[in-house]
Amino acid sequence: MNERIGQYLDFIVEIDRLKAILRQSRLFDGSRYENDAEHSWTISVMALLFRDFSDRPVDISRVIYMLLIHDIVEVDAGDTFLYAENRGEAEEKERLAAQRIFGMLDAGMRDWFIALWEEFEARETAEARFAAVFDRLEPLYQNFVTQGYTWKKHGVKKAQVVAMNSHLADGSREIGEFVNYIIEESVRRGYLAE
Amino acid sequence: MNERIGQYLDFIVEIDRLKAILRQSRLFDGSRYENDAEHSWTISVMALLFRDFSDRPVDISRVIYMLLIHDIVEVDAGDTFLYAENRGEAEEKERLAAQRIFGMLDAGMRDWFIALWEEFEARETAEARFAAVFDRLEPLYQNFVTQGYTWKKHGVKKAQVVAMNSHLADGSREIGEFVNYIIEESVRRGYLAE
Repeated sequence: MNERIGQYLDFIVEIDRLKAILRQSRLFDGSRYENDAEHSWTISVMALLFRDFSDRPVDISRVIYMLLIHDIVEVDAGDTFLYAENRGEAEEKERLAAQRIFGMLDAGMRDWFIALWEEFEARETAEARFAAVFDRLEPLYQNFVTQGYTWKKHGVKKAQVVAMNSHLADGSREIGEFVNYIIEESVRRGYLAE
Repeated sequence: MNERIGQYLDFIVEIDRLKAILRQSRLFDGSRYENDAEHSWTISVMALLFRDFSDRPVDISRVIYMLLIHDIVEVDAGDTFLYAENRGEAEEKERLAAQRIFGMLDAGMRDWFIALWEEFEARETAEARFAAVFDRLEPLYQNFVTQGYTWKKHGVKKAQVVAMNSHLADGSREIGEFVNYIIEESVRRGYLAE
């Protein structure tokens, strides 16, 4: 039996646990919370669809590779709510998780996945900035479509949403403008507190 | 407001329904059935991980684009069990579904997604053959890890599994050999009927 195939499948079984890690956002039909695996799929498709909205030239395949694996660390670290106060602690947990989980793979694959994950987190390259757009756009639009479900539940205010999503315009000016419109419209409709 | 952004987000909301389309396979921990969105994410990560297992040179990014969108037609057509007798009918339903759902997009994106989906279905190019490996490997390994859950439930026999998975070796001889080992081992352990 091929050893590397067994090792890779052990990794696939391990990251399957993302399907039990629930986010703070509801599915678009409002029926239940979304899990990390579903989120990763949706934002990967989003990146493919919106590929020509980046302000800088990007290698869209690298954007998608980042999005496919960006949440794997949450197998150990869990989901941290965007507006939570302990996001600093979460970062250290996620760093250890990356070492452990990607460490299940051979050195070549491990180093590549860790590099992709670190690039995504650092949000410096054109690809990482564009990837970040979709990681934020999905929950924002989920909130809009579900009439502010998560914002209302946690008493999130407009200024927090504006601050957290300001870097969206970093990756795509057009999507950034759309997001501003959605935020204003959410306030107007009473989904988001002023 | 940017019209194309609104259109693309309508599409994202529409395909979110894949999260309610359940497959016949259980998650690896056996806790529940997997949905189409989760399946699409897992096999996309698999393709990234196993990228050098293809017998032919492949553009792995195109393999992943196919896997990300290959099940979108099931929003209308539902999931058809691999060993079901009405798979012919399902094909016509899926063709209509592709027209309707990808038809929500502008012509450029619609034609590209339909072409990717048709390429995946035809299983002729190196990329489509390699993509098919993961679409089959995941449920096979889910069955193995859950001690033949779905095979037992539907009384599936070894000859059916062998026939359905024979083309796996088309995309990757090494993965094909691994699959043969898993099938033999499943019979030996009583997960799969002879």
